[in-house]
Amino acid sequence: MPVVSDAQRWRLDLAYDGADFCGWQIQPTDRTVQGELERALERLLGHPVRVAGAGRTDSGVHAYQQVASFVSTTHRSEDALRKGLNGLLGADVCCLSARWVSASFDPRHNPHVKRYEYTWYDRSTRNPLVRRRTHFARSRLDADAMNLAVGSMIGTRNFASFRAAGCSSTHPVRTIVDASVVRDGDHVRLQIQGTGFLRHMIRIVAGSLLEVGKGRRAVPWFVDVIAQQDRTAAGPTAPAHGLTLVWITYA
Amino acid sequence: MPVVSDAQRWRLDLAYDGADFCGWQIQPTDRTVQGELERALERLLGHPVRVAGAGRTDSGVHAYQQVASFVSTTHRSEDALRKGLNGLLGADVCCLSARWVSASFDPRHNPHVKRYEYTWYDRSTRNPLVRRRTHFARSRLDADAMNLAVGSMIGTRNFASFRAAGCSSTHPVRTIVDASVVRDGDHVRLQIQGTGFLRHMIRIVAGSLLEVGKGRRAVPWFVDVIAQQDRTAAGPTAPAHGLTLVWITYA
Repeated sequence: MPVVSDAQRWRLDLAYDGADFCGWQIQPTDRTVQGELERALERLLGHPVRVAGAGRTDSGVHAYQQVASFVSTTHRSEDALRKGLNGLLGADVCCLSARWVSASFDPRHNPHVKRYEYTWYDRSTRNPLVRRRTHFARSRLDADAMNLAVGSMIGTRNFASFRAAGCSSTHPVRTIVDASVVRDGDHVRLQIQGTGFLRHMIRIVAGSLLEVGKGRRAVPWFVDVIAQQDRTAAGPTAPAHGLTLVWITYA
Repeated sequence: MPVVSDAQRWRLDLAYDGADFCGWQIQPTDRTVQGELERALERLLGHPVRVAGAGRTDSGVHAYQQVASFVSTTHRSEDALRKGLNGLLGADVCCLSARWVSASFDPRHNPHVKRYEYTWYDRSTRNPLVRRRTHFARSRLDADAMNLAVGSMIGTRNFASFRAAGCSSTHPVRTIVDASVVRDGDHVRLQIQGTGFLRHMIRIVAGSLLEVGKGRRAVPWFVDVIAQQDRTAAGPTAPAHGLTLVWITYA
């Protein structure tokens, strides 16, 4: 058995295409990002590894930058770990960097800000080339109205209206530091930054904003949804494949 | 047998993600775009259909707009054909429009201009989210040098240097009406328009430009490659998955 002083805590920064993963969290049979990582790390390091992520992305959700951490009792240089890991991982997940960090680093509980993006494609005919990454809205969306609506989320509030059943958080208060909706050609993008999110929060926000974008609801309706602190007041949960975790920064 | 006057020639505009197709042209066993279309049209129209494309995209090549044509002896409205076809096609191919055209319409031989795009991703670590659509260049490319080089293609010239073995064209002279390379964040895009292309022409151009972008060759080398009219003077053929047929316009 290695002595405790040999143990090294690592931080991994990862990117993945969520289309062919059943989400982040390890499952007995389904292919998950955590499962793929733990299997590759065990092969590389020669001992079982438990990886902790900054958050559990749902099945189908993508990441430009997810942060994870684990402890190894086998020595590797930072470069060797990144390259070795990438040699064992599939084409749809990549280790962007591997760094030694202090033993106290905790990607989930250390203070951080996360940025997510939700993207719609809003021409009338579907586009096979963007189908894995965007939700097909079927008709032009009013991005300006969606932007006005989502701006009302900025600040520290009770977001119980955007909280899915089964959410394990002890309270529904979260801080949103930035939120906007912008048009980019035939794409409409929701960008949202916060210090933490409730279960399915951004997908419920996206599903509610779609009601505004399609003109079925007006901006004050969205503002009122927040005020009601009731999940049944909000719109449906938008599909996972439109959602991407963009980055995470630690204080 | 229907009389000749019942036959209707159709034009289809199509988009597809080439990743899971073995190219355009029908094959006995492999999945191809033409094969998928002919099978769907036969189910929809009740008679066998032969589809002609404006060109045969290679295995893995994508299209925002490909043009095809066929003759039907069964009457359908334009809207019914498009919707019916889309109901039968997989998620990676879509009929953007279906129109009645004159009996003389020939998507391959009628005068037209085609625009293609070849895209590289040029950060040092790969990005799983763009892997199906872009070629991973592994290091920063000099897009300005590539742009200078490709500009020398504009005009009507002998492009034998960019012609793959097995090309069925009777002569290697083609007209390029526009060609440029531009940077877009971590992507570098070659955009090229012409009235026709030789077999693998754009992929050989892309493979040659990559030599310039990586600094292994200078701009005058690329100009000289054209002058030599010899395939062995040019760079390697770039991978198909970076290539997209953007549009086709008919005179």
